[in-house]
Amino acid sequence: CCLAQKSGILSSPNIIIMLMDDMGWGDLGVFGQPSKETPNLDAMAAQGMLFPNFYTANPLCSPSRAALLTGRLPVRNGFYTTNGHARNAYTPQEIVGGISKDEILLPQMLKKRGYISKIVGKWHLGHRPQYLPLEHGFDEWLGAPNCHFGPYNNSVKPNIPVYNNSEMLGRYYEEFRIDRKMGESNLTQMYLLESLDFVRRQAEAQRPFFLYWAPDATHAPVYASKGFLGKSQRGRYGDAVVELDYSVGEILSLLRSLGIDNNTFVFFTSDNGAALMSGPHQSGSNGPFLCGKETTFEGGMREPAIAWWPGHIQEGAVSFQLANVMDLFTTSLALAGVSPPDDRTIDGLDLTPVLLNNSVLDRPIFYYRGNELMAVRRGQYKAHYWTWSNSWAELKKGINFCPGQEVPGVTTHEQKEHTMMPLIFELGRDPGEKYPIRFGDKEYMDALSWISPVVEEHKSTLVPGIPQLNMCDVAVMNWAPAGCEKLGKCLKVPSSQPLKCDWPH
Amino acid sequence: CCLAQKSGILSSPNIIIMLMDDMGWGDLGVFGQPSKETPNLDAMAAQGMLFPNFYTANPLCSPSRAALLTGRLPVRNGFYTTNGHARNAYTPQEIVGGISKDEILLPQMLKKRGYISKIVGKWHLGHRPQYLPLEHGFDEWLGAPNCHFGPYNNSVKPNIPVYNNSEMLGRYYEEFRIDRKMGESNLTQMYLLESLDFVRRQAEAQRPFFLYWAPDATHAPVYASKGFLGKSQRGRYGDAVVELDYSVGEILSLLRSLGIDNNTFVFFTSDNGAALMSGPHQSGSNGPFLCGKETTFEGGMREPAIAWWPGHIQEGAVSFQLANVMDLFTTSLALAGVSPPDDRTIDGLDLTPVLLNNSVLDRPIFYYRGNELMAVRRGQYKAHYWTWSNSWAELKKGINFCPGQEVPGVTTHEQKEHTMMPLIFELGRDPGEKYPIRFGDKEYMDALSWISPVVEEHKSTLVPGIPQLNMCDVAVMNWAPAGCEKLGKCLKVPSSQPLKCDWPH
Ligand SMILES: [Ca+2]
Ligand SMILES: [Ca+2]
Repeated sequence: CCLAQKSGILSSPNIIIMLMDDMGWGDLGVFGQPSKETPNLDAMAAQGMLFPNFYTANPLCSPSRAALLTGRLPVRNGFYTTNGHARNAYTPQEIVGGISKDEILLPQMLKKRGYISKIVGKWHLGHRPQYLPLEHGFDEWLGAPNCHFGPYNNSVKPNIPVYNNSEMLGRYYEEFRIDRKMGESNLTQMYLLESLDFVRRQAEAQRPFFLYWAPDATHAPVYASKGFLGKSQRGRYGDAVVELDYSVGEILSLLRSLGIDNNTFVFFTSDNGAALMSGPHQSGSNGPFLCGKETTFEGGMREPAIAWWPGHIQEGAVSFQLANVMDLFTTSLALAGVSPPDDRTIDGLDLTPVLLNNSVLDRPIFYYRGNELMAVRRGQYKAHYWTWSNSWAELKKGINFCPGQEVPGVTTHEQKEHTMMPLIFELGRDPGEKYPIRFGDKEYMDALSWISPVVEEHKSTLVPGIPQLNMCDVAVMNWAPAGCEKLGKCLKVPSSQPLKCDWPH
Repeated sequence: CCLAQKSGILSSPNIIIMLMDDMGWGDLGVFGQPSKETPNLDAMAAQGMLFPNFYTANPLCSPSRAALLTGRLPVRNGFYTTNGHARNAYTPQEIVGGISKDEILLPQMLKKRGYISKIVGKWHLGHRPQYLPLEHGFDEWLGAPNCHFGPYNNSVKPNIPVYNNSEMLGRYYEEFRIDRKMGESNLTQMYLLESLDFVRRQAEAQRPFFLYWAPDATHAPVYASKGFLGKSQRGRYGDAVVELDYSVGEILSLLRSLGIDNNTFVFFTSDNGAALMSGPHQSGSNGPFLCGKETTFEGGMREPAIAWWPGHIQEGAVSFQLANVMDLFTTSLALAGVSPPDDRTIDGLDLTPVLLNNSVLDRPIFYYRGNELMAVRRGQYKAHYWTWSNSWAELKKGINFCPGQEVPGVTTHEQKEHTMMPLIFELGRDPGEKYPIRFGDKEYMDALSWISPVVEEHKSTLVPGIPQLNMCDVAVMNWAPAGCEKLGKCLKVPSSQPLKCDWPH
């Protein structure tokens, strides 16, 4: 104790949030990846604080990212669907909606203290003009609004555009190559160089900055630059990790050489669990946890997480705090000295006491899948009110969110309700959610009576936001993004055919 | 490169082998345990070399330990059974056999260079007088010949004796208390103090020493000393880990304060994978690996492993070498400057090039279960010739070696032969053995043709040793260990009823 007291909090430190895509908890050396391919992240942990109990707000990209930037659960900020029960929705090209103008995003708040904000990489909060980053507080953007799926033929579906600020620069698989056969693309290098340049410029101008670094190399189709292909012990996915780890090292190293490391708060995490359905070639590892992306088991929602802020955070610390991507909103505001919005519920917690004094705050983790509160964790206890991996129909198609894992009555292929008698696990001795505590045992009753009030309070006060992810339409796809005329890259827009989106998971 | 060249190898460094009991790969912070309760082991790794690909020779205590001390596979040194196919055997109290006089153990070899050897903790190579440690090269012993099961009533079964050298000191649950309800016992403290005392005495006498530290607190029934109970995030098992980790710290710290850290080679590992059948209360974690103790899946045989030798081993190194407990025999001899026995096959490899220069040597790992070669790993490829978790009959009794895991056709409940077309996994991208490579794929054919010659060579030259673990007899139990008269602790020996031991797994 107590670096915080000794050094005080500098006003307006720079903030860097490094958000990986589908990277799993078990992909970092420090979290037990046998291939041990993340020396820079492991060093970052040794110099900072490791969070083994860090969560996303939803096991899918778009709602996770919306939660991070608004500090609010997707069910509040509208990044969910009511088309089906407990279905995760996201923002494919067909999506009509996006992040609402009524939501307040982190860069908008930071602007009050003069921060310049940039997003590098994947946005995923809507690709129609009104939803893009520069309409929601970011000053700069290099990246794409959607996933790098493709290539498409540009008649049934356009290739995804890459933007520089408000105008497209080109498209994936066209100007921005991804070789699906070899797994080669230099996008991570581009995203790194762009980030380094941004940091350098702000440091020179002595302006506080917020960098939201969101590379997507670990999302299928996974890719790495030529120099990184073949570098890992575990193939292409690992190569992507090696390159991202290298990039983390480069960014931290630049902060040091600019002399702003003591004034820059850096947080590394991922948007959802490893995509086991893409395994083994295109998926990461969720370590000892159950299932993966799309599910509300630990493998779907527990994320690798490291905080780094030399001189402020104790070196080599481990925090057992239950924490969440939404906390990055609230914590960033606290660090910047901005009060959070007071006209709405904010789910994020201010983690500064955790970061600076290794305090542990009692708070629940809510595991949502679409519009349903599937599970709640408090302390070491997690209660499942609903269980579902995916449907038998999807499973029969070969889509498996829990390959090689099967916990009877837990990894169910029907949506199974347990509201009256939730399945309860103690995650300390049973991180893999394999041994439900016996109904009626004293431990069960104690855990239930400890968790239930939190759940009742949450449910009774929850006012869901307007769901933004219900409608799809081929006409809204990326046919003619801003700037396409200059480049001669506008495509013909088909006629509108609005329909309810189909969310099978 | 190359500490070795700079410093040379000192003649006869001290050797400490720290062998845990049923501790899993995933129980160390550095291997991803979410509870992060091993700061001393994590520091040991940061100061030494981590081995993510380190194996035992058999997924059960006795044969693993016999292999470590002889440098030979159990099928050669006799620590196996022919009573059934592919059954693991060990040394319960009823066992008639033990380690053969014809085997040469590490301390016997080290004696040639003047080493004093001590075993502290569990022996498990036979408890009849002719099989005890001091008959096989050790100069000192504090510990027990068998597991600390009990308490027994001393009429049907005697409690296990604790020996000081060649005579009993008392019995578990009697003079050496283990409180099964609270999980409290000070045995780990006793084993630590005894080890520290031994190291201090040898340092004073300036004699090279070999300490074989084999505490058993993580074997069910797991226990910890009072001061450690409740210290971990995951209950009693974690408390035991915390105390063992503390003990590791104390031993390394003593080496430093005695100024002999640069002249002491320390290796930490475990005898077999975590005992998942004892979960969740009495079992550790095998991280991302499949199944556990008793099986030849990775969870049964991959072990946590750290080498430490300041000034000789590069700090913070990671070795991807495929290595094995049997290598500790050969490597220790190399370090001591003793030639290994040349009249028999030694399976252990000399790891000094790995330790000193981070070389990687091409060598296979053989996964035996009893008398059957179940699987072979070479490089990243592992071929299963036989698969078996346990029988349906055992499973129906509630004994599960793969709880919550089920890989169709892999975690089979019959002994399934795949000799002609082995199941092949690539362990880099698929450490959990969930995705057999498709028969006939080029990768399958390449891997098979790479592994097959090694298997054929091994099988065609193998001369199995005489199996020592076939016969059981109630008359051989620990009724009247040496020294019992002095203590008034001799029990009546029942009449002999020799029979074939029953090995269900
Ligand atoms: Ca994602
Ligand atoms: Ca054992």
